[in-house]
Amino acid sequence: MFKAVIGAEKLKDTIESISTLVDEARFKLTADGVSVRAVDPANVAMVSLDLAKDAFDSFEATEGELGIDLTKLNGILEMADKNDNIELSLDETAHKLVIRMRELSYTMSLLDPSSIRKEPKVPALDLPAHIVIRGEDLKRAVRAAEKVSDYMSMGVRGEVFFMEAEGDTDNVQLEMTKDQLIDLKPGEAKSLFSLDYLTDISKIAGKTGEVSIDIGKDYPLKVRFKIAQNHGDVSYMLAPRVESE
Amino acid sequence: MFKAVIGAEKLKDTIESISTLVDEARFKLTADGVSVRAVDPANVAMVSLDLAKDAFDSFEATEGELGIDLTKLNGILEMADKNDNIELSLDETAHKLVIRMRELSYTMSLLDPSSIRKEPKVPALDLPAHIVIRGEDLKRAVRAAEKVSDYMSMGVRGEVFFMEAEGDTDNVQLEMTKDQLIDLKPGEAKSLFSLDYLTDISKIAGKTGEVSIDIGKDYPLKVRFKIAQNHGDVSYMLAPRVESE
Amino acid sequence: MFKAVIGAEKLKDTIESISTLVDEARFKLTADGVSVRAVDPANVAMVSLDLAKDAFDSFEATEGELGIDLTKLNGILEMADKNDNIELSLDETAHKLVIRMRELSYTMSLLDPSSIRKEPKVPALDLPAHIVIRGEDLKRAVRAAEKVSDYMSMGVRGEVFFMEAEGDTDNVQLEMTKDQLIDLKPGEAKSLFSLDYLTDISKIAGKTGEVSIDIGKDYPLKVRFKIAQNHGDVSYMLAPRVESE
Repeated sequence: MFKAVIGAEKLKDTIESISTLVDEARFKLTADGVSVRAVDPANVAMVSLDLAKDAFDSFEATEGELGIDLTKLNGILEMADKNDNIELSLDETAHKLVIRMRELSYTMSLLDPSSIRKEPKVPALDLPAHIVIRGEDLKRAVRAAEKVSDYMSMGVRGEVFFMEAEGDTDNVQLEMTKDQLIDLKPGEAKSLFSLDYLTDISKIAGKTGEVSIDIGKDYPLKVRFKIAQNHGDVSYMLAPRVESE
Repeated sequence: MFKAVIGAEKLKDTIESISTLVDEARFKLTADGVSVRAVDPANVAMVSLDLAKDAFDSFEATEGELGIDLTKLNGILEMADKNDNIELSLDETAHKLVIRMRELSYTMSLLDPSSIRKEPKVPALDLPAHIVIRGEDLKRAVRAAEKVSDYMSMGVRGEVFFMEAEGDTDNVQLEMTKDQLIDLKPGEAKSLFSLDYLTDISKIAGKTGEVSIDIGKDYPLKVRFKIAQNHGDVSYMLAPRVESE
Repeated sequence: MFKAVIGAEKLKDTIESISTLVDEARFKLTADGVSVRAVDPANVAMVSLDLAKDAFDSFEATEGELGIDLTKLNGILEMADKNDNIELSLDETAHKLVIRMRELSYTMSLLDPSSIRKEPKVPALDLPAHIVIRGEDLKRAVRAAEKVSDYMSMGVRGEVFFMEAEGDTDNVQLEMTKDQLIDLKPGEAKSLFSLDYLTDISKIAGKTGEVSIDIGKDYPLKVRFKIAQNHGDVSYMLAPRVESE
């Protein structure tokens, strides 16, 4: 059983944060809210989303799992105005999700959850360095790095957070001290990441005021921030590339 | 003889309402204004436009007919600013229309009206149900229907106006009561239409406050509204599709 | 030695005024500012740019020449916000230009100036007619001409400046008297130009309030205006087409 009402913008942001990595996902319902864990097809990045009951104007659910085609759902949500309320209700017998916005109702077939890749186990990582950066600064550095390379390294040197990309002839560098960041906990850290994934993640993170980054030495990166007006938590884990030099 | 001045935006809206169905049209001139009747190449939809003399800042015409390439005229009008006045004058001997906007003058060859498909006879239809809906509500429902199908049915059930589209797995439905509409006159009505045409028509109608719809049971649809700041009447007639189920 | 700070918008406008004709250029540095002279690959149009020291927030340079990939530089400047300051500094040993915007630094390889086409000699022309026109009026006439032809003639007839384009069936004409222009010095003038080039030049000139045009009879056209908030001078010279009629 699932029946909920949520502001269109909050729902859009939530779906987008998952659909940046995967096209289909399993939404886990409990009485307390919705959660999603998904890994991209290449096993490089993982997203973990928790949307609390409070993010909804009304929310009723029993334990369950919904298989959702995110591309289709994004298409439907495009039709909503920013201030529309979206009403979601599960038609259990027909295995469909009814999405209502004003007088319009869209009946969407659900996917069989067992046909969607299993929820990954989120590894526990103890990463030495921690920074908090403005979303737009992260996005800006990633966009600059794309101009010269397909990879970007991130790390902490002393009291400075850096992002660097080296191309054949040109290179790009961002250096930020604790003053220029929101927070910095130093620690030995430098890892290389694929810009394909960083671009997708930073597009979502770029809309947010504060983005937490945990990073280590040739270790996965963890990027966390709030969405849906602080009622949702998104975190991404991104595997490092081994430097070939 | 033809010589007239009209605001750029009014003229653009007028031309667009015809060019959504046909690329060329015969413009009929009388001392009282301009009118166009045209049928799309597939004989599925018909447009009928009447633009009164009042829509113009100045208007002088004797009876006549102008063959106009609408694609070209749209291209020319794109260059006008919203608040520009457009001066139109017929060069009868050269068979050209001179279009002036500020210091710029564009001399456009006219088409031979006899080379353009004849003006259709507008059939008299007595359709049982009648509704008046906000243009944006119509456009919104049509856009939603496109997500699931190439066809959409419209009709009235009791005191409710509905639009429905059924896809292979999903479906879309709009239901509006008299309260949610501007007006409703009930009557038995349900017909299926091609979204190709409804999309074009609803894009134009979507800019308007009030759109009148007359509808019957497996009968053509009639969509009417005002354009050019209430000085013009546009109406579309759209043939139904026979349901194959 | 070169080290300078300039507003992002001023730098973008400056680079764009050159990159509309060429992909690479030699930037000549002196203690007083920067200048560029370049000819397009087909030898039809020439651009001459002088950006005074005053255009910069700070400027220090010794005589020198930088070979710059304009396409790449445009891409880098896209990342800057309108109000950002851009810091430029030359790394002479590595032969690189370091471009800093906020915490981000981009290190761009310079091109060998000798690999870039030599600076052209700007011919001294004594053109009989001179007009000053609003940039947007020029752009508008060029856009209209494109609708009907690949060429456009410009000239002065008595006290009237005209621009004309003739297509197979349609034609476009702009006529402006001294009152409608900012200034007009009459003189016998009519030349035909390729719209390929006029389009590029008028896109840049269209952003400017006042554009000076010098013109003769089957002679090159000279188009001049200020950029970078009046601290820069751009001028284009465009060879005429010989009328084949």
